[in-house]
Amino acid sequence: MSQVKAYAAQEPAANLEPFEVKRREVKEDDIQIDIEYCGVCHSDIHTVNNDWGGSQYPVVPGHEIIGRVMQVGKNVSGFKEGDLVGVGCMVDSCQHCDSCKEGLEQYCENGVVMTYNGKDEHLGGHTFGGYSENIIVDKKFVLRMPENIDVKAAAPLLCAGITTWSPLQHWNVKKGDKVGVIGLGGLGHMGVKFAHALGAHVVMITTSPEKSKDGKELGADEVLISKDSEQMAEHRGSFDFLLNTVPVGHDVNPYLGLLKRDATMVMVGAVEPLEPMHGGALIVGRKSIAGSIIGGIKETQEMLDFCGEHNIVSDVEMIDIQNINEAYERVVSSDVKYRFVIDMKSLKEK
Amino acid sequence: MSQVKAYAAQEPAANLEPFEVKRREVKEDDIQIDIEYCGVCHSDIHTVNNDWGGSQYPVVPGHEIIGRVMQVGKNVSGFKEGDLVGVGCMVDSCQHCDSCKEGLEQYCENGVVMTYNGKDEHLGGHTFGGYSENIIVDKKFVLRMPENIDVKAAAPLLCAGITTWSPLQHWNVKKGDKVGVIGLGGLGHMGVKFAHALGAHVVMITTSPEKSKDGKELGADEVLISKDSEQMAEHRGSFDFLLNTVPVGHDVNPYLGLLKRDATMVMVGAVEPLEPMHGGALIVGRKSIAGSIIGGIKETQEMLDFCGEHNIVSDVEMIDIQNINEAYERVVSSDVKYRFVIDMKSLKEK
Repeated sequence: MSQVKAYAAQEPAANLEPFEVKRREVKEDDIQIDIEYCGVCHSDIHTVNNDWGGSQYPVVPGHEIIGRVMQVGKNVSGFKEGDLVGVGCMVDSCQHCDSCKEGLEQYCENGVVMTYNGKDEHLGGHTFGGYSENIIVDKKFVLRMPENIDVKAAAPLLCAGITTWSPLQHWNVKKGDKVGVIGLGGLGHMGVKFAHALGAHVVMITTSPEKSKDGKELGADEVLISKDSEQMAEHRGSFDFLLNTVPVGHDVNPYLGLLKRDATMVMVGAVEPLEPMHGGALIVGRKSIAGSIIGGIKETQEMLDFCGEHNIVSDVEMIDIQNINEAYERVVSSDVKYRFVIDMKSLKEK
Repeated sequence: MSQVKAYAAQEPAANLEPFEVKRREVKEDDIQIDIEYCGVCHSDIHTVNNDWGGSQYPVVPGHEIIGRVMQVGKNVSGFKEGDLVGVGCMVDSCQHCDSCKEGLEQYCENGVVMTYNGKDEHLGGHTFGGYSENIIVDKKFVLRMPENIDVKAAAPLLCAGITTWSPLQHWNVKKGDKVGVIGLGGLGHMGVKFAHALGAHVVMITTSPEKSKDGKELGADEVLISKDSEQMAEHRGSFDFLLNTVPVGHDVNPYLGLLKRDATMVMVGAVEPLEPMHGGALIVGRKSIAGSIIGGIKETQEMLDFCGEHNIVSDVEMIDIQNINEAYERVVSSDVKYRFVIDMKSLKEK
């Protein structure tokens, strides 16, 4: 067991401050990772604030982790000291339920272990995330990072990336499909990049006309301003797929009207009550609304490989860990393009 | 053009009274049908009351029509005088859009013509339904009825039947699946019969313990009382498919909790706003909620053939047309097992 420098919130909505976490010994299936970069996800803030309930303090957030292998356990092959690796939202699962067997550990029927605020099976208590010097993770949950992409900007792929990639794959988005990405934040900007790279005709759907230029630069073929009823009417019934990244409850009925018959809108952002949906918005046109959360380890590796081939990373703003509380305020007010990433040297050196 | 005896509402929420409707001449593609039985659907009442807006008066309801061919146009083959036929919710569609080409006339992109309160392309004005002596319908929208089943009890197959059959087919419900049918009314009782006949393990889900006995007699293997939180917890995450026939807005969140990962609940009843749905109820488990409306002509014929083979009809209570207003009151208070059917002799003879 070792003591490792970290940043933690000690109570709901508290500022994050320096804290030392315990890390287990490196066991036979473990990989110890020296953390170089860690992305800042809105979920970090929800957990710090206990917005979803169930937060356990101290909270050490961080599940978009990039680093280099420091040490491997004796059963670990294929990873060696110095390898560039990533860890996302999960660090363990039961490995024997149907979901795990299908490579969908995020839906583990016995409870996936989240990277932070999960149940720590090794030390007891709860898990501590990536706002720390290093982390020790079972080899099955360690991803190989492509070396040819901008490493620091790759951190958000581990959560924002896979969260948008997985539904595009599962609902079989393909070349020529008309795909709408609703909301242009950390998730939305990755949705636009991926849908574009997959060959779809991408429409960025936003309430904010000022986001149009950025949307097109990220890969959108068109921008649809959802507050403009004429524009919405023009696009009515024309979308093969909608990826809804809006992070708060909202009125989904206008978006359902954009779908073609038999098409689906997938929610990846709003883990809270939506405004009342009209049954007729689904019934007329046999439409679906579904949800999706992150993605399995196999699929995450496929996404990272795809990012390597297509040179896809997130648009990020680098910060030092000492500025994390200010960064949280800016995330909450959507004042970031499009993801903060912490340079973890700042934790080790300052 | 001919004048035909019918029953109509002259204004919103008015009682139905005798009325004469105009029927067009029998054109070359037409079939004239002497109506023997007509089911009473809750949609009839919604249209009479203008609950959904857009009702045009006088309203002559009725889209669960069973009768015998009186006369056929010169282009009609395969139907002859005396044949037992049915007409459901649609009497025409464009026939050239993608939906029509795929046999999904109910989703016609140029606007399907409903059996009543649709746009009458022949005489102008709006269409008049089956609460009348006879009807003239394009051959493409006339179904062949199996002669071996109880004809009068077959009328509701044309709406309640296809409305529940179509989603069971589209979402591929098969032998051994655990299927829940939510709500036991006109739609629900057909859902239970069909899911049972398809070999599913059927759970009838209802708020009313007093419906348990009926549910099992109709073919349910189990009854789940949705107000009983212990029972709901036992069934959590166990359903392959849910058919939600509840005809009014309600809280769908507890039902979404019953679904397995990747499973779908299909709404067929509630054409109105639902209570706020929690995004997390979809996201955790990659679940879907979808809608479905009636079914295409080809699929309706397949359902009728299946009913002939498996001797499936609705449970009905027969009435005379003169008692229609009292029947409407009883439908609204759910006091019917499970569908009223009008014996149309009462219109012709009294």
